[in-house]
Amino acid sequence: MDPRLEEHAKILVEWSTEIKKGDMVGIRASPESHEFVIALYKKIAEKGAIPITLMNTDEMGKAFFDGADEDTLNTAPKHFEAFLENIDVFIALRSPSNIKALANVDSKRVIQRNVAMKRVQELYLSKRWCLTVHPTYALAQQADMSMEEYQNFVYDATLLDWKEESQILNKMKEHLERHNDIRYTGPETDLYASTEGRVWIASDGKHNMPSGEVFTAPVDNSVEGKIYFDIPFLQQGKVIEGVHLTFEKGEVVDFSAEKAEKTLKEIIEVDEGSRRLGEMAIGTNRGIKKYTLNMLFDEKIGDTIHCALGQAYKENNGTNESAVHVDMIKTMHEGEIIAGDELIYCKGKYFYEM
Amino acid sequence: MDPRLEEHAKILVEWSTEIKKGDMVGIRASPESHEFVIALYKKIAEKGAIPITLMNTDEMGKAFFDGADEDTLNTAPKHFEAFLENIDVFIALRSPSNIKALANVDSKRVIQRNVAMKRVQELYLSKRWCLTVHPTYALAQQADMSMEEYQNFVYDATLLDWKEESQILNKMKEHLERHNDIRYTGPETDLYASTEGRVWIASDGKHNMPSGEVFTAPVDNSVEGKIYFDIPFLQQGKVIEGVHLTFEKGEVVDFSAEKAEKTLKEIIEVDEGSRRLGEMAIGTNRGIKKYTLNMLFDEKIGDTIHCALGQAYKENNGTNESAVHVDMIKTMHEGEIIAGDELIYCKGKYFYEM
Repeated sequence: MDPRLEEHAKILVEWSTEIKKGDMVGIRASPESHEFVIALYKKIAEKGAIPITLMNTDEMGKAFFDGADEDTLNTAPKHFEAFLENIDVFIALRSPSNIKALANVDSKRVIQRNVAMKRVQELYLSKRWCLTVHPTYALAQQADMSMEEYQNFVYDATLLDWKEESQILNKMKEHLERHNDIRYTGPETDLYASTEGRVWIASDGKHNMPSGEVFTAPVDNSVEGKIYFDIPFLQQGKVIEGVHLTFEKGEVVDFSAEKAEKTLKEIIEVDEGSRRLGEMAIGTNRGIKKYTLNMLFDEKIGDTIHCALGQAYKENNGTNESAVHVDMIKTMHEGEIIAGDELIYCKGKYFYEM
Repeated sequence: MDPRLEEHAKILVEWSTEIKKGDMVGIRASPESHEFVIALYKKIAEKGAIPITLMNTDEMGKAFFDGADEDTLNTAPKHFEAFLENIDVFIALRSPSNIKALANVDSKRVIQRNVAMKRVQELYLSKRWCLTVHPTYALAQQADMSMEEYQNFVYDATLLDWKEESQILNKMKEHLERHNDIRYTGPETDLYASTEGRVWIASDGKHNMPSGEVFTAPVDNSVEGKIYFDIPFLQQGKVIEGVHLTFEKGEVVDFSAEKAEKTLKEIIEVDEGSRRLGEMAIGTNRGIKKYTLNMLFDEKIGDTIHCALGQAYKENNGTNESAVHVDMIKTMHEGEIIAGDELIYCKGKYFYEM
């Protein structure tokens, strides 16, 4: 076994979910993560906890959608809910064989099924949970890499000293919370938002692996100015690139995209909330050196910021409501991040490095 | 997809477990049965039922045993139990990548874990459940076949008209239940047992797929005579072959084996019950033309009988108790099966073919 699988498993078990004696552990895996599940089983058993693994793939989901009528789509999975009610920890492994398996399922039916699965979602978010990736050919392909390159990419991002990372991230959170606003500057960018009454959260490897971001929800109507997102991202199967947004009183008043502008327009026009920002964040993981169209990694890239149009998180005291939450990322090597009168980041350096 | 996977799935869903609208369905699978699980998902969804799949392999089991201490081995999986309490149907797919993954785990630890898993076992046996096989290289290798040959072997045995098979099997059950005893004759064989007060069961594809046997539990102290089992079988990793047993008042008083006699001796000496028969049965599935050291198939081979030393089944009104249940099989092309004064089988023909 690649020793990095054992290191990855150790981080998930000891740092992310802090598994202890007697814990009932649920794992969500695919056939491609079998070897990683084996690494997890040994570590979980060593802690005195009991693992059970659910096998789930989009190909299985496709078969379900192909067979199910309306009533079936609306039927809640009582057995799945009962399982989740009785776990302490949930580890979700993303390891697809084919990221396009659901490409031709009507998105309305996917949303309909998600509504029936709402309690499942709530249940696992109420536990100690962590989402991570196990490298597969499908993900390597999406990232424009060979498998070996992609494995290196994943482990460079995840096999960090998370205790140390956590200290750095929490220091940044403390500094950001001394102020009531945030400002991003840079080429074609000067965006301001109030963060009064909001909470900054340090994403330090507890729920996402990799982690490496500090994020909040801006005050809904306070966002002013313009921003240019230079990192491409995937939405509705389309790569959107080179997005310009202009805000007045919290709302998008002008927008453009160098690629897939039509898809961007559709996102902005979903509902009232999709015209406003639900999240503003700073990515800090310098183990991630390039984007791969996988938001779990891309939004954590070091020396970036990101903003999301749409739904805000309750943990941030966020209030914006929307059916969407679409992250967009900007590199900051030529920019600044300013909170109140404090320079948090300037052209490649965080305040604690200056 | 091989259309035989869809046929196999249809039989499991429609005949074996009779899945209907609203059923909560649990599947136990391995990575190697992913494609078959996809076939099952579509059929299950078409019935209006909701499938959830557990991934379980002996390699995962091995990792758990490697990590677990005594306390952990004794800890019941509450989340697994909760899942099973909330299902209507359980479909167990045997599709190993390696049938020897647990070869070097102390069998005492396996038994200890099974004790902690007792409620899991009871729960799924209390539902509509079925055990089947999905062809893998490991199983083909065990059967001395290529993958293509093994696939043909499995589907020849399973893709039958089970309604018709059930009628034939139940007719045999009715005839056997008209009498109070059973006798097997043939080369080096003349074995008699009372079946008074016992129930014959037709295994017609509800719990095992393939099926094709009629079985009962003999009256504990009634078994008299001798028998020669000419089909090899696997026990404790050893192939036991050419077994002779002699019974007096229900107990083995003499035995020999052409291969692995030592292992046979150990089985007979496990406890009081392992010296007596817990099962006597007639195999009827002529789709199975050779033994493969896989009891799910071997005991169903057409024109055979089998007997098991050890634990009897409650469904048969069986009373013999033992920690073991070891099936042994005999071809009957030169033998007879007689119940009371009725010839049930004679040299290649069942009573309904004579």
